[in-house]
Amino acid sequence: MGFPRVYFKEDNDGLPPLLATCQRRVRFEEVDALGMVWHGRYPSYFEDGRIAFGDTFGLQYLGFRDNKIMAPIVQMHFDYHAPLRFDEVMTINTTLHWCEALRLNYSYEILGPDRAMACSGYTVQLFTDEMVGLLLVAPQFIEDFRQRWRAGEMGP
Amino acid sequence: MGFPRVYFKEDNDGLPPLLATCQRRVRFEEVDALGMVWHGRYPSYFEDGRIAFGDTFGLQYLGFRDNKIMAPIVQMHFDYHAPLRFDEVMTINTTLHWCEALRLNYSYEILGPDRAMACSGYTVQLFTDEMVGLLLVAPQFIEDFRQRWRAGEMGP
Amino acid sequence: MGFPRVYFKEDNDGLPPLLATCQRRVRFEEVDALGMVWHGRYPSYFEDGRIAFGDTFGLQYLGFRDNKIMAPIVQMHFDYHAPLRFDEVMTINTTLHWCEALRLNYSYEILGPDRAMACSGYTVQLFTDEMVGLLLVAPQFIEDFRQRWRAGEMGP
Amino acid sequence: MGFPRVYFKEDNDGLPPLLATCQRRVRFEEVDALGMVWHGRYPSYFEDGRIAFGDTFGLQYLGFRDNKIMAPIVQMHFDYHAPLRFDEVMTINTTLHWCEALRLNYSYEILGPDRAMACSGYTVQLFTDEMVGLLLVAPQFIEDFRQRWRAGEMGP
Repeated sequence: MGFPRVYFKEDNDGLPPLLATCQRRVRFEEVDALGMVWHGRYPSYFEDGRIAFGDTFGLQYLGFRDNKIMAPIVQMHFDYHAPLRFDEVMTINTTLHWCEALRLNYSYEILGPDRAMACSGYTVQLFTDEMVGLLLVAPQFIEDFRQRWRAGEMGP
Repeated sequence: MGFPRVYFKEDNDGLPPLLATCQRRVRFEEVDALGMVWHGRYPSYFEDGRIAFGDTFGLQYLGFRDNKIMAPIVQMHFDYHAPLRFDEVMTINTTLHWCEALRLNYSYEILGPDRAMACSGYTVQLFTDEMVGLLLVAPQFIEDFRQRWRAGEMGP
Repeated sequence: MGFPRVYFKEDNDGLPPLLATCQRRVRFEEVDALGMVWHGRYPSYFEDGRIAFGDTFGLQYLGFRDNKIMAPIVQMHFDYHAPLRFDEVMTINTTLHWCEALRLNYSYEILGPDRAMACSGYTVQLFTDEMVGLLLVAPQFIEDFRQRWRAGEMGP
Repeated sequence: MGFPRVYFKEDNDGLPPLLATCQRRVRFEEVDALGMVWHGRYPSYFEDGRIAFGDTFGLQYLGFRDNKIMAPIVQMHFDYHAPLRFDEVMTINTTLHWCEALRLNYSYEILGPDRAMACSGYTVQLFTDEMVGLLLVAPQFIEDFRQRWRAGEMGP
């Protein structure tokens, strides 16, 4: 399927994307009858990537919960390049791309033990709360996060 | 491993246990690298059994929710007799055993397409609510259910 | 996120796409802490759609296995429109789109109990075998399937 | 439900049981609509425990595979003591108990972040190969493992 794509046009005012990395080992239960990780396990791998991102850059789920904000995934995409197998250790690279609009645009690269690309993809999240529904203005803790990014305090 | 066991002593005042049956087809994602259903999928099969039981005898989860009662599983047991494979249709027999104490004692038999026993086991559930914690006296909708059972209105 | 998209340009020589429909009931284990089906369960829903498609049009997984052909998913995409909740019955519409190249282009629509769109998306599968790797020429049982489609024997 | 039980009578000729420990963090997808880890996720936690045990004491799944030996789980049991919640880090203690008969008797304790018991249980595995079926005599790599245990080379 060729190389991983550029999933987001860099609408970034020159702001660098933010990258977090984590690792995960393939469980026996994740492998299918053909000996390869079943394609439907990868949403969990992307989720591990977002958790690692939140840990690294201070954007945890519990922050959302305490502010009664939700960030539902409205779009998710996978390009599968090569299979992962039982007990292999993958590297999950998770990148947040700057976006003027109020949304979270993450792209992902999952590398196998040989550092070859196993899977790439992206997710898009919007912000909602129970009262208003879809949010068009950033809640304070998100605005703070964006300010720090703009200020270059989270650059590479 | 021999025959399925009797999991609950019949503490039943002569009350017949209640039996509900449903079917389920093995999904590709449930099968492991050895071509057999991974042992850790069976909690889902037992749960399908309880849902079918609730549908048959009027003991639905949403009834619990509306009464703000929970029935957490405090014990779960599996005896595996023979493997299930992709695309096989299993039969799940779910039996509720009378118990004077306030708990739900379910036993389960999962039969393969040849009607041979694939798995048997049991679960035990207690009743709790957020205020009191563990309930020792039955909430009304459970007492109603027990009354109908005692009255023979749900016998075979 | 607007209306479901057209995921495949109709490269179809006037051949009608093929549609199969099935239903599935949301399990308790599929729902997250927010009371909604977790976004990562939907690959299983799409897989149910493909199984129903195979049952309807004679394109079963076991046919692939007997011919030692695999059809790995190389691309999968989801657009989430509205949440599904516990115990709701969804309708899964699965459509195969004609493609001159040797691949399976499926699109999906998942409708909630109110018939509103909950999720749409697509998958792309290629054909491989263990000897050759990627197949460029259709194996016989796939060619037969395509012939019947071309001959209008599987039209609406 | 009281204290964790002794699941295996110590049929051990004075041999000490072997204990391995690992940790795991609760994923969002593992939590149910009530905010607690769904009871059916725990087979995966026990499996992590066995993997950690194999890493620690040299009894890896791939050793089984290379010897064409399988060790299917024939019995699995859970006692649930207290719920785990999203993002909590659990400790999984996995103990192998000596048994003269050819089987693997593991018991498990899962502790929450407060070190309180969340879940305990056990699994029983037999040995099979494709030719003979159930094995009554230990294959060499298992006999080696037992010899080292008997020789006290894996004691605490």
